[in-house]
Amino acid sequence: MLENIDLTKKISKEDYDSQMEVLESRIGHLQRECKALGIPIMIVFEGYGAAGKGLQIGKLIHSMDPRGFEVHTIKAETEEERMHPYMWRFWTKTPVKGRISIFGGSWYRRVLIERFEGKTGDKELKNAFDSINSFERQLADDGNLIIKLLLVVDKKDQKKRLEKLAESKETAWRVTDGDWERNKRFDEYSHMMEDMLFNTDTDYAPWNIIESTDRRYATLKIYNTVIKAMAEQVEKAKEKIRAKETAAQQPEVNDDVDAAISKEAGDNIKDMQVSILSKADLSLSYTKDEYKEKLDALQKKIEKLHGEIYRRRIPVVLGFEGWDAGGKGGAIKRLTERMDARGYVVNPTASPNDIEKAHHYLWRFWRAMPKDGHVSIFDRTWYGRVMVERIEGFCTPEEWKRAYREINEMEKDLYDAGAIVIKFWLHIDKDEQERRFKERQANPDKQWKITDEDWRNREKWDQYETAVNEMLMRTSTDYAPWVVVEGNDKYYARIKVLETVTDAIEKRLKED
Amino acid sequence: MLENIDLTKKISKEDYDSQMEVLESRIGHLQRECKALGIPIMIVFEGYGAAGKGLQIGKLIHSMDPRGFEVHTIKAETEEERMHPYMWRFWTKTPVKGRISIFGGSWYRRVLIERFEGKTGDKELKNAFDSINSFERQLADDGNLIIKLLLVVDKKDQKKRLEKLAESKETAWRVTDGDWERNKRFDEYSHMMEDMLFNTDTDYAPWNIIESTDRRYATLKIYNTVIKAMAEQVEKAKEKIRAKETAAQQPEVNDDVDAAISKEAGDNIKDMQVSILSKADLSLSYTKDEYKEKLDALQKKIEKLHGEIYRRRIPVVLGFEGWDAGGKGGAIKRLTERMDARGYVVNPTASPNDIEKAHHYLWRFWRAMPKDGHVSIFDRTWYGRVMVERIEGFCTPEEWKRAYREINEMEKDLYDAGAIVIKFWLHIDKDEQERRFKERQANPDKQWKITDEDWRNREKWDQYETAVNEMLMRTSTDYAPWVVVEGNDKYYARIKVLETVTDAIEKRLKED
Repeated sequence: MLENIDLTKKISKEDYDSQMEVLESRIGHLQRECKALGIPIMIVFEGYGAAGKGLQIGKLIHSMDPRGFEVHTIKAETEEERMHPYMWRFWTKTPVKGRISIFGGSWYRRVLIERFEGKTGDKELKNAFDSINSFERQLADDGNLIIKLLLVVDKKDQKKRLEKLAESKETAWRVTDGDWERNKRFDEYSHMMEDMLFNTDTDYAPWNIIESTDRRYATLKIYNTVIKAMAEQVEKAKEKIRAKETAAQQPEVNDDVDAAISKEAGDNIKDMQVSILSKADLSLSYTKDEYKEKLDALQKKIEKLHGEIYRRRIPVVLGFEGWDAGGKGGAIKRLTERMDARGYVVNPTASPNDIEKAHHYLWRFWRAMPKDGHVSIFDRTWYGRVMVERIEGFCTPEEWKRAYREINEMEKDLYDAGAIVIKFWLHIDKDEQERRFKERQANPDKQWKITDEDWRNREKWDQYETAVNEMLMRTSTDYAPWVVVEGNDKYYARIKVLETVTDAIEKRLKED
Repeated sequence: MLENIDLTKKISKEDYDSQMEVLESRIGHLQRECKALGIPIMIVFEGYGAAGKGLQIGKLIHSMDPRGFEVHTIKAETEEERMHPYMWRFWTKTPVKGRISIFGGSWYRRVLIERFEGKTGDKELKNAFDSINSFERQLADDGNLIIKLLLVVDKKDQKKRLEKLAESKETAWRVTDGDWERNKRFDEYSHMMEDMLFNTDTDYAPWNIIESTDRRYATLKIYNTVIKAMAEQVEKAKEKIRAKETAAQQPEVNDDVDAAISKEAGDNIKDMQVSILSKADLSLSYTKDEYKEKLDALQKKIEKLHGEIYRRRIPVVLGFEGWDAGGKGGAIKRLTERMDARGYVVNPTASPNDIEKAHHYLWRFWRAMPKDGHVSIFDRTWYGRVMVERIEGFCTPEEWKRAYREINEMEKDLYDAGAIVIKFWLHIDKDEQERRFKERQANPDKQWKITDEDWRNREKWDQYETAVNEMLMRTSTDYAPWVVVEGNDKYYARIKVLETVTDAIEKRLKED
């Protein structure tokens, strides 16, 4: 999914200067708070070569009290380190309570650079991910705050940066053969990075993507990310102290400076969210003739492929999500029109009924999963948990936060059982939605399709956009990818859905 | 470690009858409470064939309201089930809130019987454990109570039971070829069971060992285990409701019936703890001549092997724990006497100092882990967390409970880095300890070795015994086994330590 992130984000010098002034004083304040409360902090800088790790570490520590942190630059192991278990050198660098350890490079080296260089084999890889997760979970359980930052640039930008560094005598030494090689095989390295994200993006130590094309933008996002994380940890620590005090005596006055800082940083971060939707080119379209021709060919193809997956006993799970009036129904109709009705089911997902509510939210979807050789199509899906349930408060923040992992686990189970799993996000812009809503209202045949709730949801467009971007980021996996379908033109959208499904089936048939 | 469990436990008919009367009414009470609170419960019966799963399920449901539970007997997959993802048939059987699903056989089939039959390969195995843990964690997070019971008998007893079943026409059909095969290759199957315990004994769904040689004993232990788990879950649910009420209005009067039930069941369970120590034969001994001869030969051997592991760069980690005056010092002395002092370090573990306290409790042990080719000997170890820190309240129950897993993870990291890891428990009985304490007090040269604290610890013998048995059970692994050293005779103990270490090194040298 990294290739889908919008890396064009920028910030002007004036905006940067005015925001930084506030942020720098906040970091200083929070560092003192964390020290007083004895909170140990680890900040990890990882990401593509030449994305600016060193520079950003410099920017970050600029506003910190130098007596309170240490910076560890992690290169290849020394002789001494090589003779110890891999995590030894990181365990010995964990911070004392109240101090900050900053890592330029980290324990992730083993699953990134060293994996790329073939030093970490398949068997070691699994152990490495296990070790990393144990390490972080053990420390987090013990009160450590772990902030992981992934600095992202694209291939072209990275190449330009490496060339610029190589040009100057002062910086040429910083560019290694490895850097060039990783730029050359950028996609391969990105794949390893995504694998790392999938295996180590946990609730106790989540990853934060830092779009680093624009250095000012990256600095601001790093500051806001770190501030939010520190403020939340401070709040949590104070909450604990208060809970103890309340139990013993009278509750004291709530000191909500940190809560305010945390909230503001949260708002800032929201504006700086990773965006995937913004990359979609909604001008894509087909003429009616193009559409008809393609549709006919693809429907013939899927009819044949559908028989083939039945014969080969391959189950297929297709999830459809998207904006209201995004065109899910039309796309599903065109997809299934010529498929044998005995071989697929369309499951419309309404609000859960009483029996469904009395089970785990995934239960009703598990029940509807296809047999081998069958296709289950879901019109709205289990992703309701991280969209409508999140936004309407139908579940707690803990619940929707852990849902990303739960959903990934379910889809992995399906994949392991041999299924093809694809999720579609039918994407339109706000104007197009308004046009369609009005058209529906004006058309007596379509009026049933539009309700007051649709208009109410529309008012929450921005909240949904945040949730959708996060969802796309956290749940698009190799084995169950999200496909953003550019939907302003219905013809284009329907063809893209059909093409994606037929391509995926053909690919699988070749593999088996 | 299963082979070390004391399976001789028994209970008389009178004791059984008098206890069961109380327990049966409690289960009924708790079932109603769980129903009212909407707590879904899953009870899993696994274990060796003919250990009495069916009979025990019958005993358990006897006191339950039949409208509130379902029993699912899990055999090989049906055609329909085989055509779905493996976990589908279990997801579809998860209980509605307030109801109980009892599983005779379960999702563990895949990592036990099916693994034994070669149907679950190495790759599937890892996926299977992941799936199982996801499944249980997702349901536990959603409020499900998961009670897992492992019914254990030994090989001989199992054979007798199978023969008895086979004799009678009415029951002969229940004995399959698979049962005989698993009895024949009992050790192999036990190994798979231990692997399962290691991979799936989690804080959200822990395993409970049920010694099943004596059926009455097993029934009582199952009842107490289930009652304790239900009562705790009820308490937790009420606590949550109360917390909400307190936030809104005045706290209401604490209803502590369930707390009392939970405590009593806890006390009962404590008496029924898995015991490993009780199996140690403390009469084992050597004469002085035998000792001298063996000691000389083994010390010569270890001297040579020590050079060899240095040359081959194999790190060795040896942990020593045991009762006070159990003979740790003497054993370490005999072990190292002829080893090259440049190649080993003995780390005495005292109470943590201020800097150590400001880190994760494992930090100081990580720092002391040996380089490749070196031997680190720990006189007292990281297991302090689950013994003295647990008993003295130096850490919270959450902290010592998660320590089992943390310690297993650390030792796995060491093993993955190529280390030999062995832990010794120097075992003596209470009388022997008293004898040694008095001897120390009487001897001016040894008086420094005995303090008031030793006497105070002695008063907590029973508490320690519970903690030690649990520790031996939960942290003895293939890659880092616990060795219980029968220590009433010092000669015997010292020789056993030396033999264990030399055997382990020789075994490793052969493997590499």
